[in-house]
Amino acid sequence: MIDETHARGRRSWVAAANADDTDFPIQNLPFGVFRPVGSDVAGRIGVAIGDRILDLAGIADRLADAVEDARTLLASPSLAPLMAREPRLWTALRRALVRMLEAGSPDRPALEPHLVAAETAQMLRPVRPGGFVDFFASIQHATNAGSLFRPQSPLLPNYKHVPIGYNGRASTIGVDGAAVRRPNGQRRRDGEEAPSFGPSLRLDYEMELGIFLGGASEIGEPVPIAGAWRHIFGLCLLNDWSARDIQAWEYQPLGPFLGKSFATTISPWIVTADALAPFRVPALARTAGDPAPLPYLLDPADQDLGGVDIRASAWLRTASMAAAGTPPRRLGQASSRGLYWTPAQMVAHQTSNGCNLEPGDLYGTGTISGDGPDALGSLLEITRGGSIPLSLPDGQMRTFLEDGDELTLTARCEREGFTPIGFGRCRGTILPARGDPHASPPVTADGDRRPAPAALA
Amino acid sequence: MIDETHARGRRSWVAAANADDTDFPIQNLPFGVFRPVGSDVAGRIGVAIGDRILDLAGIADRLADAVEDARTLLASPSLAPLMAREPRLWTALRRALVRMLEAGSPDRPALEPHLVAAETAQMLRPVRPGGFVDFFASIQHATNAGSLFRPQSPLLPNYKHVPIGYNGRASTIGVDGAAVRRPNGQRRRDGEEAPSFGPSLRLDYEMELGIFLGGASEIGEPVPIAGAWRHIFGLCLLNDWSARDIQAWEYQPLGPFLGKSFATTISPWIVTADALAPFRVPALARTAGDPAPLPYLLDPADQDLGGVDIRASAWLRTASMAAAGTPPRRLGQASSRGLYWTPAQMVAHQTSNGCNLEPGDLYGTGTISGDGPDALGSLLEITRGGSIPLSLPDGQMRTFLEDGDELTLTARCEREGFTPIGFGRCRGTILPARGDPHASPPVTADGDRRPAPAALA
Repeated sequence: MIDETHARGRRSWVAAANADDTDFPIQNLPFGVFRPVGSDVAGRIGVAIGDRILDLAGIADRLADAVEDARTLLASPSLAPLMAREPRLWTALRRALVRMLEAGSPDRPALEPHLVAAETAQMLRPVRPGGFVDFFASIQHATNAGSLFRPQSPLLPNYKHVPIGYNGRASTIGVDGAAVRRPNGQRRRDGEEAPSFGPSLRLDYEMELGIFLGGASEIGEPVPIAGAWRHIFGLCLLNDWSARDIQAWEYQPLGPFLGKSFATTISPWIVTADALAPFRVPALARTAGDPAPLPYLLDPADQDLGGVDIRASAWLRTASMAAAGTPPRRLGQASSRGLYWTPAQMVAHQTSNGCNLEPGDLYGTGTISGDGPDALGSLLEITRGGSIPLSLPDGQMRTFLEDGDELTLTARCEREGFTPIGFGRCRGTILPARGDPHASPPVTADGDRRPAPAALA
Repeated sequence: MIDETHARGRRSWVAAANADDTDFPIQNLPFGVFRPVGSDVAGRIGVAIGDRILDLAGIADRLADAVEDARTLLASPSLAPLMAREPRLWTALRRALVRMLEAGSPDRPALEPHLVAAETAQMLRPVRPGGFVDFFASIQHATNAGSLFRPQSPLLPNYKHVPIGYNGRASTIGVDGAAVRRPNGQRRRDGEEAPSFGPSLRLDYEMELGIFLGGASEIGEPVPIAGAWRHIFGLCLLNDWSARDIQAWEYQPLGPFLGKSFATTISPWIVTADALAPFRVPALARTAGDPAPLPYLLDPADQDLGGVDIRASAWLRTASMAAAGTPPRRLGQASSRGLYWTPAQMVAHQTSNGCNLEPGDLYGTGTISGDGPDALGSLLEITRGGSIPLSLPDGQMRTFLEDGDELTLTARCEREGFTPIGFGRCRGTILPARGDPHASPPVTADGDRRPAPAALA
């Protein structure tokens, strides 16, 4: 719901929050977990405001009147307890923070000691998702990827009926800046009958949004689509790193596994559903001949305003570009308004069989691609499966990612009459594959372990 | 390692542990989490011995000399802290318990007050797995399932190279006795172009073993196969309930999702890797022409003794059989010694791309089927995709599971010269699908939620 917290005229006493190009004006206030520089705390909950982080544990006492259990919820090293609560509480917390951070607030002197310079803080994973589901909601991406394998019929028959998704690996979800090591794995090269094991030769990114779920549902009790947005705590950027060669060899018949599970990177700031209210848009209009969503996926309010217009971009900088001070090259830009399925449809679908939700569960939207060559969300699509190399400002060519490449996702929401908000940064740099994996020492040292069979490698 | 804890002659002062047919002699001592009847504790760690459960939190003080941190580890309502520790500690705990429980032990008077009658205890999920990976390791099952779709080439080209697996949903894992509600979902019936939404018409079970992992590994650091068994805490039974019609419609291109995520049932007792030592067997011999495992999957010790011989059975009892007192009918029996991939190969594969392990992670082996019509692990195989109905003792026929059917998995390990051990029970009864899902009230009551669009259903 759009309310006074979104008013364009509202300014903050944190000066940098009033800059035109900030991702974090007072109208945003995304939640994250950080560790102050030099500290060894497990993590502290904060909101981003301009170039500062407001340490909420430090001001929990001042929020206690507005937000029940504020002291307990905000002292946690994870957002899970807050996510477990109801939307009413999230909204009350946001409103209290807007009041305290706006220009002229009498709370300024009390809050200032609890502001941390964002550049000095280490951002942590905001919550350890108990479940991670990656969808495939961009029909442009599904069409582009499918056309590489099935030029005549790129979309499978189920695509326009089913919000296709699969369970991903939650343990390797990291935040902006986390190391991304090129995976080793089985891949079969063209013309070879047998696979070999070694570094992925077709390492890719996928430009996605992440959707963090709040509240919970019981096993056996689907979440109706009409109530589904109430389970959405907020959104972030998500890079679903993909080893295309490992994935291509392993994925039949049970889907992606090691081609994806080595790493997923999210942006550390979760932009709340409340902050996104002005940027809600209608669900993607179906074209003539498309099936109507089945009733459990169809809700008038969701059709009217269940989409969200978040324009994401992916940026590449090679090591040599970085050394020369060359800015990153934008690889593609596309909006989530083009997704074939809305977030509420994802929730309704994922729970339609009785599967429960847990607070902190994470969805990925799937790669977001739009129309045209500048709106593609993966190198697979940009280089047509590696067949058309991309030229970079330093004279290098790319089909897939090379060691040392830095891939960054960013996103902004803009709408006439509203202050733009952004998502911060979701960045990863590719480290070389681990060498000689069979000769390496075991992970857990132990006297009675036999040596690894290096001779076999 | 086979040691004195496995000696056949060893007997317990718990009389029922010495019965020939018990699953839980003193040579077993599986770990679980239980709630005493009438109690509201979150859970207490116990070991099964005959028809009793020994409450380990109650005797932690007596274990403190043998097992470091025993008080902390055993006071947890979950096995996760114990699983996080190293195999040396698991072994020390087992040895101390054998000493205290064996006939003639001076500890008997101190332990007896901490024995609980198993029939009075409620068994709980022993740990909430952070990750759940389901493999596809039975080549018989893969062949049987594949032949339904591709009679000429049932096995895909990757099968003999890759331990195929996929990430499952951890939040819906329950233990023996948990309700299993028939899922609703999209399924497209034969001859229909468009799918409809409703109760699964092809609900099946899958007879599997679960493998609980202990210890941890770091992201980016594969676990070498030679050390992989050290990450295996123990095994249980696992029923990977499957809605074949939902799965068939949704699974391309990203694998099973809602056809599996509605429920997974495990047996509550985890039989430790130590208890299984006498039942280790060679890895399945490859037949002529089969490829050798790639080096990262090949370890001489694993080839020699990396398999395990656990004979599992699936039993069906309809509601009318139960009412008439008819015993369950055995549907199939097969041993895990026939799996194409060993547990250590699963660990080495799953971490080969740098994906980390966390304590409490769970693997499923995939459906275990053997040779012949009495060795099949799912109705899909027994009824050839529903085309050959099965006759039951009450005169009913089955292609897939009906409401009220009770499906139970059991398993035993037997070897000449050793006391047999068993796995207890993994049972579920099918509840009818939830009716009229679109008209149902939302999960989380809230005043401002709009009514569900019943008119659309």
